[in-house]
Amino acid sequence: MIYLDYSATTMTNKEVLDSFNKASTYFGNPNSLHKLGVEAKKLIDASTEQIASILKCKKEEIIYTSGATESNNMAIKGVCFKYQNRGKHIITTKLEHSSISEPLKYLEGLGFIIDYVNLDNNGSIDLDDLKNKLRDDTILVTISSVTSEVGTRNNIKEISEIVHSNNKTILHVDMTQSIGKEIISLEGVDLASMSAHKFYGIKGIGILYKRESLIIDPLLMGGKSTTIYRSGTPSTSLIVSMSKALRLQYEDIDKKIEHVKELNKYLRDKLSSIEEIHINSTDTCIPHILNISIKDVKPETMLHALEENDIYISTKTACSDDDSYSLSVYSVTNNMDYAKTSIRISLSHLTTKEELDEFVNVLTKEIKKLTTWYN
Amino acid sequence: MIYLDYSATTMTNKEVLDSFNKASTYFGNPNSLHKLGVEAKKLIDASTEQIASILKCKKEEIIYTSGATESNNMAIKGVCFKYQNRGKHIITTKLEHSSISEPLKYLEGLGFIIDYVNLDNNGSIDLDDLKNKLRDDTILVTISSVTSEVGTRNNIKEISEIVHSNNKTILHVDMTQSIGKEIISLEGVDLASMSAHKFYGIKGIGILYKRESLIIDPLLMGGKSTTIYRSGTPSTSLIVSMSKALRLQYEDIDKKIEHVKELNKYLRDKLSSIEEIHINSTDTCIPHILNISIKDVKPETMLHALEENDIYISTKTACSDDDSYSLSVYSVTNNMDYAKTSIRISLSHLTTKEELDEFVNVLTKEIKKLTTWYN
Repeated sequence: MIYLDYSATTMTNKEVLDSFNKASTYFGNPNSLHKLGVEAKKLIDASTEQIASILKCKKEEIIYTSGATESNNMAIKGVCFKYQNRGKHIITTKLEHSSISEPLKYLEGLGFIIDYVNLDNNGSIDLDDLKNKLRDDTILVTISSVTSEVGTRNNIKEISEIVHSNNKTILHVDMTQSIGKEIISLEGVDLASMSAHKFYGIKGIGILYKRESLIIDPLLMGGKSTTIYRSGTPSTSLIVSMSKALRLQYEDIDKKIEHVKELNKYLRDKLSSIEEIHINSTDTCIPHILNISIKDVKPETMLHALEENDIYISTKTACSDDDSYSLSVYSVTNNMDYAKTSIRISLSHLTTKEELDEFVNVLTKEIKKLTTWYN
Repeated sequence: MIYLDYSATTMTNKEVLDSFNKASTYFGNPNSLHKLGVEAKKLIDASTEQIASILKCKKEEIIYTSGATESNNMAIKGVCFKYQNRGKHIITTKLEHSSISEPLKYLEGLGFIIDYVNLDNNGSIDLDDLKNKLRDDTILVTISSVTSEVGTRNNIKEISEIVHSNNKTILHVDMTQSIGKEIISLEGVDLASMSAHKFYGIKGIGILYKRESLIIDPLLMGGKSTTIYRSGTPSTSLIVSMSKALRLQYEDIDKKIEHVKELNKYLRDKLSSIEEIHINSTDTCIPHILNISIKDVKPETMLHALEENDIYISTKTACSDDDSYSLSVYSVTNNMDYAKTSIRISLSHLTTKEELDEFVNVLTKEIKKLTTWYN
């Protein structure tokens, strides 16, 4: 198997699964007053401290959620319901994940105003346009650090400075595609979403980072749990496993990044020589994502052709409903043909050059086959 | 260890954990179009079919959540936000879990009217009072099938008939304390909440049953996932493990119930002979929960005294914040002394008479010690 769909999800690290299994013997309800509860709570606290030290934040700033979808929903609705009296203006981009765009659509129905900031030639947020669109009544800017289809990066530091020039505006960053792939910084970020299954953890657990002094409305209300912001019996084993996954992924992270950069360059070079291929991801994109278009080949057709060879890539993001064309690709290329024929290859530190060689061989063969059939 | 806190949480069944581990090798994103995604999706579908067949409902009626807190929040807010134009009146009881009472407080702040139905001498909902309180603008009745502190039962069938005499009113039942303990029926129920960790499953996964034709507002919005009502990458391994847990728990369920009934009777008989003890749970309560009060002994003091002997019980529900007195106990006993000195013993089909013998021995000794010290 050649798996090149790491941005959709990752396999669970064996050591992470071991941690999960070990932690699951500490089965007490972490909310219980007795020793079994206290022991479970201690395990959670130790995990939270580890996560906080990796993310360079306070442990009180970590809120456990069921994943990035909950984190995004909680951040967006939590801010908007809390601060709607300050204003109803929200800034985002057209390239956000559905767990951002859908809550925003819902809020639009409730009278909030959603403004879309322009993107530059690299698909990144146009900072001047952000400055222009920021209003006195802007309560939220919600964007991703890295977009999932093309891998375009946003400069969070500069965005934060602009956003916080208005002291009423809160910055939420969906870090789902950068956590575990880059060294991330939460400086200047008020809220950040993350999901364990993107960094070799288990599906069903995630984080909402919330700056300590920021107050938002909770989404899941009930008893205290690990924080007053998110109720529910905390899952000791899922939390412990996520902490482990994060620690392992940030071990030798520089080397991992360097390896993926090399892979990216290697693959770009190989693909550049194939006439039918256009590379959509720009040089400023994250090296883990390489989005390409193949002339006259439907993305789904190629996905299934590769699948027949035990090779796995993505057409668009796994969670996307609309499959007519890729807005992300269009925004970078301004070319509808490219936007209708794009596939996403996503790399990992686990990927090898041999895998890429085999992938390119098969891809070349399939392109020939498919374009001969079609034309 | 003598664990008598099964209503707070249960240990994960070894076979359930095995299923989790096996399923985690199917790591593809169930939303992915390729084979790895399709395989994961198939596993989820098979699990959903199994769950639906056990719950005697349609597979489209199963919505996966992160647990009962999410299920309760989703049901309550999902109904109230969707149908607020029909009316703003909600009926509940004073004994609900915080994941019901807190969302209701929040809705009260938004202009909804929360009405509390009276309870009868058994702590069950007074059906006549329910009839009286039901209004033309009642959009939701939200109650539990079994209360968690005392184990009082509500007659869901009769309640459903009353509630649905008004065709605008939706019935949500928190089944967290009855799932896996009783043979449950979803007949006449519009929405029902469940959590895997109460039936020997893993913490972090639960169900909201939603009658197929009922439309509510989603809480976690985004891509399609297994249902349009709850977005997020579904956790294949958590879902498979919950299906396994449910199947195993409902194997020989009649025998399991019979065993717990016997245990309950056995324990009641033994405790009845201890002068300082008053049994708060009535004969109509679920046999899995036995709530008692101990004259002049603070619940927390007894909890820790038992803990020293490796015996684990609960004071109130694990998720409760307020510890001044037990409203549940007061509502059944009408006695503040009992309400201030209550502990909850919760039994399982795994509990043995030998464990109960040892528990009663230690309890008796500790009562003597503590009451001698105090008096």
